Amino acid sequence: MPDQDAVSQIRAREAVLTKPAGSLGRLEELAEWFGSWRPLCLDQADICIFAGNHGVLAQGVSSWPANVTEAMVRNFLSHGAAINQLARNADARLHVVTVGNLVASGDFTWDVALSSEAFLEAVSTGYNAVPAGCDLLALGEMGVGNTTAAAALSAAFFGEDGAYWAGRGAGLDDEGVIRKAQAIDRALSLHGRNHAPLELARIYGGWELAALLGATLAARHRRIPVMLDGFVVTAAVAPLAALHQEGLAHTRLAHNSHEQGHRQLASRLGFVPLMDLNLRLGEGTGAALAIPLVRAALACHNGMARFSDAAFADENERKTMK
Amino acid sequence: MPDQDAVSQIRAREAVLTKPAGSLGRLEELAEWFGSWRPLCLDQADICIFAGNHGVLAQGVSSWPANVTEAMVRNFLSHGAAINQLARNADARLHVVTVGNLVASGDFTWDVALSSEAFLEAVSTGYNAVPAGCDLLALGEMGVGNTTAAAALSAAFFGEDGAYWAGRGAGLDDEGVIRKAQAIDRALSLHGRNHAPLELARIYGGWELAALLGATLAARHRRIPVMLDGFVVTAAVAPLAALHQEGLAHTRLAHNSHEQGHRQLASRLGFVPLMDLNLRLGEGTGAALAIPLVRAALACHNGMARFSDAAFADENERKTMK
Repeated sequence: MPDQDAVSQIRAREAVLTKPAGSLGRLEELAEWFGSWRPLCLDQADICIFAGNHGVLAQGVSSWPANVTEAMVRNFLSHGAAINQLARNADARLHVVTVGNLVASGDFTWDVALSSEAFLEAVSTGYNAVPAGCDLLALGEMGVGNTTAAAALSAAFFGEDGAYWAGRGAGLDDEGVIRKAQAIDRALSLHGRNHAPLELARIYGGWELAALLGATLAARHRRIPVMLDGFVVTAAVAPLAALHQEGLAHTRLAHNSHEQGHRQLASRLGFVPLMDLNLRLGEGTGAALAIPLVRAALACHNGMARFSDAAFADENERKTMK
Repeated sequence: MPDQDAVSQIRAREAVLTKPAGSLGRLEELAEWFGSWRPLCLDQADICIFAGNHGVLAQGVSSWPANVTEAMVRNFLSHGAAINQLARNADARLHVVTVGNLVASGDFTWDVALSSEAFLEAVSTGYNAVPAGCDLLALGEMGVGNTTAAAALSAAFFGEDGAYWAGRGAGLDDEGVIRKAQAIDRALSLHGRNHAPLELARIYGGWELAALLGATLAARHRRIPVMLDGFVVTAAVAPLAALHQEGLAHTRLAHNSHEQGHRQLASRLGFVPLMDLNLRLGEGTGAALAIPLVRAALACHNGMARFSDAAFADENERKTMK
């Protein structure tokens, strides 16, 4: 649970820093959040991308073929993707983890996405992927078809139908979006919503979504703050909120994705995204962009002078400013 | 004017980078904007803070006394302010320029803010303050009372009354906001709105606002992209938009300030802020936070692989992805 003593200390210091109270807005919130989990020192930021493939792709729910997942993993490993540039820009380490050997999960329109064994294997892969020494974990994903899984999972947890949650993903046309919504509706008819949170994750999720769940749980146990990315990452960790009211308290949502459904999902989980840059790429790109914001928040909290410090030491000013 | 050939080249490259077209949203816009003014290389980012004092303070429009401007300048010089931490975090140089020797401008409720000579002196100070080698200029300000000047200037350019534009500034209470709105209304009654843009800047602005205008003009002449900060900076450069339809094309608005009036002012100038973090500090803090976003945009555009590059070289994938 968040360390309330640390929060009190942080608030007390914020109140005497050389600025009008509250004037750093969400930076102050970020410092308080980070400090409620660990000391206010961000030496090592890690970005973990989990990659997996999806059986539901057979339903024509993506404009890209499954082999693009593997091609993008190669692209990550040869430093050619957007996230590679953003990781360097944020002075963060990038880790790429393939889940389920990139074999497609089950097609949840007529099967479950993962067997119980496969689900636990994927969760464990994620759980063990959080690097040693990590002070801030940013999460990303790659998996052709995974916005369909995210939409189905959102529908399973929060109601509404396929059309409500299905968006264009990586560039689907209008007919594709209809196919996607219908695939989700078929899955909901088949499996229903009346299952335990982890069971919903297993039925409707997929390899990399289960790994994201595991990584977020590991971070909680190790008191590592987590920066969430877009629709898929947010949907993947939703089961933790269903399991415990404070299950996502160690996470923040980096941005509002352009992908339909993300804004609603964020709202239902109580997240207020830090940014809204019309991103819809995944890979952890939004989360990576938020790392400099966390660094900025900590730098201000730790580095700013207090009103009692030198520049304000003139007695008259002290009186008038306090 | 923006270099349209450069824009075409940037768009052509964006189209073949390894991501769905348009999926980097506003980062793509930022790269295009930056590249329309200078090569896509951000070696040196400079933050210029202009500081000045305001005669209108005599009308009880701020909760802080005038000597806080000087104290904050000392704080900047001793690295104790928020902007010092954010400049370091953004790997930017920080420059602090006092304007008008921190002597208060005229009180525009019964006088003009600046004489013609003082106005030109302040503009020139700003014009000459833009550092050599600057690739991106972030603007900030410090001046107790300057949100009153910004509000008056906004009212002069865009209509509406004092109550519409007057906010809490650095922490004004309800009565203070009413005093502030009334002071603006008195000034509008006295001077009116029917003046040339530079004359409005001279009457309602002040030392640091005129310097911000000068710096933004210098940046235009030297093709340096400018990142604007909050309400005061935005109001200070509004005359350039009134002088020429494309007068602010080399600028972008870093964030939406929590200060009342900024959202409306941004909208009337056609800006869509990059961030909304509830900041209301000034100093260029919002602009500084946007510098990593510009670096990120350029890093993606310059560093990403194309679909024809190695990771995607398999002929089958090339065919299916193009």
